[in-house]
Amino acid sequence: MAQWTIYGDSQSGNCYKIQLLCALLGLDYDWVEVDILAGDTRTDAFLAKNPNGKIPLLALQNGQTLSESNAIINYLAAGSALLPQNAFEQAKVQQWQFFEQYSHEPYIAVARFIAKYLGLPEERRAEYDAKQAGGNKALKVMEQQLSQTPFLVGEQLTTADISLFAYTHVADEGGFSLTHYPAIQKWLSLMRQQAGFVAMG
Amino acid sequence: MAQWTIYGDSQSGNCYKIQLLCALLGLDYDWVEVDILAGDTRTDAFLAKNPNGKIPLLALQNGQTLSESNAIINYLAAGSALLPQNAFEQAKVQQWQFFEQYSHEPYIAVARFIAKYLGLPEERRAEYDAKQAGGNKALKVMEQQLSQTPFLVGEQLTTADISLFAYTHVADEGGFSLTHYPAIQKWLSLMRQQAGFVAMG
Repeated sequence: MAQWTIYGDSQSGNCYKIQLLCALLGLDYDWVEVDILAGDTRTDAFLAKNPNGKIPLLALQNGQTLSESNAIINYLAAGSALLPQNAFEQAKVQQWQFFEQYSHEPYIAVARFIAKYLGLPEERRAEYDAKQAGGNKALKVMEQQLSQTPFLVGEQLTTADISLFAYTHVADEGGFSLTHYPAIQKWLSLMRQQAGFVAMG
Repeated sequence: MAQWTIYGDSQSGNCYKIQLLCALLGLDYDWVEVDILAGDTRTDAFLAKNPNGKIPLLALQNGQTLSESNAIINYLAAGSALLPQNAFEQAKVQQWQFFEQYSHEPYIAVARFIAKYLGLPEERRAEYDAKQAGGNKALKVMEQQLSQTPFLVGEQLTTADISLFAYTHVADEGGFSLTHYPAIQKWLSLMRQQAGFVAMG
């Protein structure tokens, strides 16, 4: 039994963040595959672990649990080179992660969910279309930063890059073209070159 | 000139988080009032400070800026009693803050914005109504934790409580009744008793 058990869905970008972080740091973990559409996150057993009924979820050997993908990867990365020592840079990592959860994921990941998981049903077409403007706004904010620095917080790879790589690299599955975002494309390529990198799925 | 300048809207819960944090810690700052509805966050001058065009925004004396309310309060609270020393508890603070931005604010704060700022116009009534279920789900998750511990992360007040106090204490302005959430009501009262507490606005 590994030190950590992760409950997740291999097709979910939020869950992939943890797989990628662990691969880059060489951390061992047990994986429990969870099927959201089959109701696995709505059982009493799962809700006892996470009352918010969401994955990913990290369980420690002592039974304590931690939810929210970005909180989990920051916890697992503590003390590693993926979290800066400087207090302001640490804050910048969090800035990009809150940006990801509020201004990026609700557009790009949700559009992808509607298209890839649900097959873009007609009753959700308007919602899907409405996600495009917000997603492109988020991509523009990333493009502006990545035109100035190789990674989101500066010269070094941090957990903020892992957080934003997760859904940006599959943004096309949500209808977003990266053609007009050359700095993002370069950064995606740089991410894939990192030692230990693993693909999603 | 204080060490920090904060750009914010006194009626915004996200901005109030910083005012409350600074009051509790006795931190001095300069405040620049920003009017979102008048377009103050869409000017070139503001977008140069925050390309995402959002408040609150923290500016340091050296010109560096930090956005995202929860990243800002964690930065200002570094080294204080409002951030736990224990790594797992630090992660729990972040867990609740990501929960706030993804599962709480988009329902409770947005419903309040539609009602209080926009006057609940007929064309946004359906959206307002749709926010109620998600907001109550978030309140139930909080109620469950606060039935077990006085604060969200345990026995001690942390920045996670400040993050969630901001919109929970004005949830009624978004149409949410706290009658069925006795543990939340007790926690709101406990928050108001903290030395240095300031009200919003």
